[in-house]
Amino acid sequence: MADEPNEADETSLIATDAVTLAEAASALRTGRRDVVKYVERLHDRIESVEPTVHALVPEPGRSDRLTAEAAALRDRYPEPRDRPPLYGVPVGVKDIFHTRGLPTRAGSDLPISELTGAEGSAVAALRDAGALVLGKTVTTEFAYFEPGPTRNPHDPQHTPGGSSSGSAAAVAAGETPLALGTQTVGSTIRPAAFCGIVGFKPSYDRIPTDGVLPLAESVDHVGAFTRDVTGMRVAASVLCDDWETVATDDRPVLGVPTGPYLSQATEVGLDQFDAQVEALERAGYEVRRVRLFNDIDALNERHDRLVAAEAALAHAEWVDEYGDRYAAETADLVREGQSVTVEEVAAVRASRRDLRAEVAAVTAEEGVDVWISPAAPGPAPEGIDGTGDPVMNLPWTHAGVPAVSLPGGRVDGLPVGLQCVGSFMDDERLLARAQSIAAVLAEAFRQ
Amino acid sequence: MADEPNEADETSLIATDAVTLAEAASALRTGRRDVVKYVERLHDRIESVEPTVHALVPEPGRSDRLTAEAAALRDRYPEPRDRPPLYGVPVGVKDIFHTRGLPTRAGSDLPISELTGAEGSAVAALRDAGALVLGKTVTTEFAYFEPGPTRNPHDPQHTPGGSSSGSAAAVAAGETPLALGTQTVGSTIRPAAFCGIVGFKPSYDRIPTDGVLPLAESVDHVGAFTRDVTGMRVAASVLCDDWETVATDDRPVLGVPTGPYLSQATEVGLDQFDAQVEALERAGYEVRRVRLFNDIDALNERHDRLVAAEAALAHAEWVDEYGDRYAAETADLVREGQSVTVEEVAAVRASRRDLRAEVAAVTAEEGVDVWISPAAPGPAPEGIDGTGDPVMNLPWTHAGVPAVSLPGGRVDGLPVGLQCVGSFMDDERLLARAQSIAAVLAEAFRQ
Repeated sequence: MADEPNEADETSLIATDAVTLAEAASALRTGRRDVVKYVERLHDRIESVEPTVHALVPEPGRSDRLTAEAAALRDRYPEPRDRPPLYGVPVGVKDIFHTRGLPTRAGSDLPISELTGAEGSAVAALRDAGALVLGKTVTTEFAYFEPGPTRNPHDPQHTPGGSSSGSAAAVAAGETPLALGTQTVGSTIRPAAFCGIVGFKPSYDRIPTDGVLPLAESVDHVGAFTRDVTGMRVAASVLCDDWETVATDDRPVLGVPTGPYLSQATEVGLDQFDAQVEALERAGYEVRRVRLFNDIDALNERHDRLVAAEAALAHAEWVDEYGDRYAAETADLVREGQSVTVEEVAAVRASRRDLRAEVAAVTAEEGVDVWISPAAPGPAPEGIDGTGDPVMNLPWTHAGVPAVSLPGGRVDGLPVGLQCVGSFMDDERLLARAQSIAAVLAEAFRQ
Repeated sequence: MADEPNEADETSLIATDAVTLAEAASALRTGRRDVVKYVERLHDRIESVEPTVHALVPEPGRSDRLTAEAAALRDRYPEPRDRPPLYGVPVGVKDIFHTRGLPTRAGSDLPISELTGAEGSAVAALRDAGALVLGKTVTTEFAYFEPGPTRNPHDPQHTPGGSSSGSAAAVAAGETPLALGTQTVGSTIRPAAFCGIVGFKPSYDRIPTDGVLPLAESVDHVGAFTRDVTGMRVAASVLCDDWETVATDDRPVLGVPTGPYLSQATEVGLDQFDAQVEALERAGYEVRRVRLFNDIDALNERHDRLVAAEAALAHAEWVDEYGDRYAAETADLVREGQSVTVEEVAAVRASRRDLRAEVAAVTAEEGVDVWISPAAPGPAPEGIDGTGDPVMNLPWTHAGVPAVSLPGGRVDGLPVGLQCVGSFMDDERLLARAQSIAAVLAEAFRQ
């Protein structure tokens, strides 16, 4: 590791030299790095990049709070051997997670008194493991599409993606080694790809969603962002229920889902995906091309209707009282969702399980271990009035299978991610395999 | 307290002499009663009454498990001063709560592999406070109306009520001093009344419902059963978020909601209610008669539609796959719910808040502190093919305000309950006031 953690290039918004989560956790736990000095240094980094990136929700007194919390943690665990796995690791928390001591705003104009609730399991699990809440990160309005002020650290003229915009940008800009997000369509994998970092969306319900404002409960997932897969495995072991350690000795067979699903990517996106696949084949991976998601249009439509209906259910009382405080696109979603019948919602909910079974069957028949596809149609679009298209993530989210985005080169200076997808509830092996795949991509594209 | 706790009349199914929760907790904590001997004695009681009452889900090896858990607890807390508030107190858990080490069956024929999940906050909070899980209690199918085998300990030819049938019957029969239930319409207050014990349904969301199979999530409440209000206050302080201790020095003004709501009770039910009101007036309580719930038919219909729609949502995937394993009445509920639109669900969800505001306004205008009404239309109906009518509980459940049922005399040998209702999130004062009201009723009806 670098002598000075987070010795990022101060002239750049990208934390090229920032320590990874794994490095930070190790240095803090062993005492090579003092936790108070570490958070003070991160605060300097925040001061330097936030005026451009806007990844964090402003918090008066953040620096003093963090320093005090770091000092209290140090007092609590004077002995390195007693320190929990994420001792002193800061975590940015998407502003739809209720978090002790910090209000929830959810990128919304609703009165914050409406958005209260107890801190949920995910944040509590990180705290129990020694993590420090760095602060709230910017979310689109209620984790849908209306963007906040966050900009892509790789080019402030481009979106960081969404809806977990601030979490992805904060990690990419070296403001924190770890952040929490959510994904209902593509809100973790897409911004991770646009920001050139690692994003992980586990199997459905593998991380409890209690204490998180729902967008569409039957497809809402908690996700996480890091700069390194090693660090993501540590975070996942803390966040996911019943995490098991697995070996990483096999070389998985990779499956490319061909057909109308893949054709949704842009030309530059597909070109870069081909380059990623070639790099993996050169490194010795077997790649099988398999037709999947032939009914992608119908599947996209089903998922969107489900999100609309469940969003309408979740926002019923607020829309009733504060309809005029919603952004137009969010209000339209709720309105569309209101016309859906319970029968349709029920049928689409049941279809998640059917899709999961179908993907599992094809995976087994074709001998695929990990599906790979573009994490987004292409690099981050220009402008911050939109957050890009989650269409490459949608079917995997619908099936509830685990997915991770890995940095996979650049197009016109902007990062492009590779989405790796594993089997339902086998999150452990997906991340173990992703670690080797990430190493190949890092070597091939000299990231 | 009696020299021998749970010195119930062995010839009766009613635990007239059984210790209350408050007595048991005190005796166990101070060491006057040994926890292992206590659970062994409860097991004898279970052996004696279960062949008739059927309140508990059969569990092979229950006695050995309980004895071992009690011994482990004793080893963990050798010193009385270290013991938590519910040290060694057994709790019966309605079989829709996921509970570590015990399967969830939910009174259903679905494969138990479908009904798995992590133990939720309510059970965990009781365990953290020292409680021992006595076992699962019988529930109607998925907490709706299809009854299980449980009989009313006061007369086995009568229903114990539902859907928390086993929890209410187990406490009444002296098998446990504490049990957990739920209420979506009247599933805690009604069986408590039918079984002559104390039932408490707190404010909506005051006890988290995570780890509980949902029936209708926006009106599902966790509830509890004890024989004594003092004990219920201890249990509530453990179960409810942010419980505050309040003084009990005031004499509340009681409100009787007149009009079509009250007219839903039977003649004998109303006669007994009049006797309860007279007893309270004689004891010095001021009683004000106030018109409330003028639109009770429409309100009942709204609530029933909401329950149907949300049950259809919750059971979507199971009905899709296992429709033929559902009881006819439950399947009908799901079918009815499927035709409801999201717009209607959203509107009815919003109406909960409107009703809560309306009740609060009338409460303030009329100077009412506690609303009182029959806890059920009358005593427990004959037969165990039904569980009685929750109509007296419905509007309070819809409004999400806290309610408690207190034993209030008998009709033809069967208990009749008085329902006391407080203000939203003021559960503390409701139970404090209920303690004095319960004392008046106990004296008046020599229970």
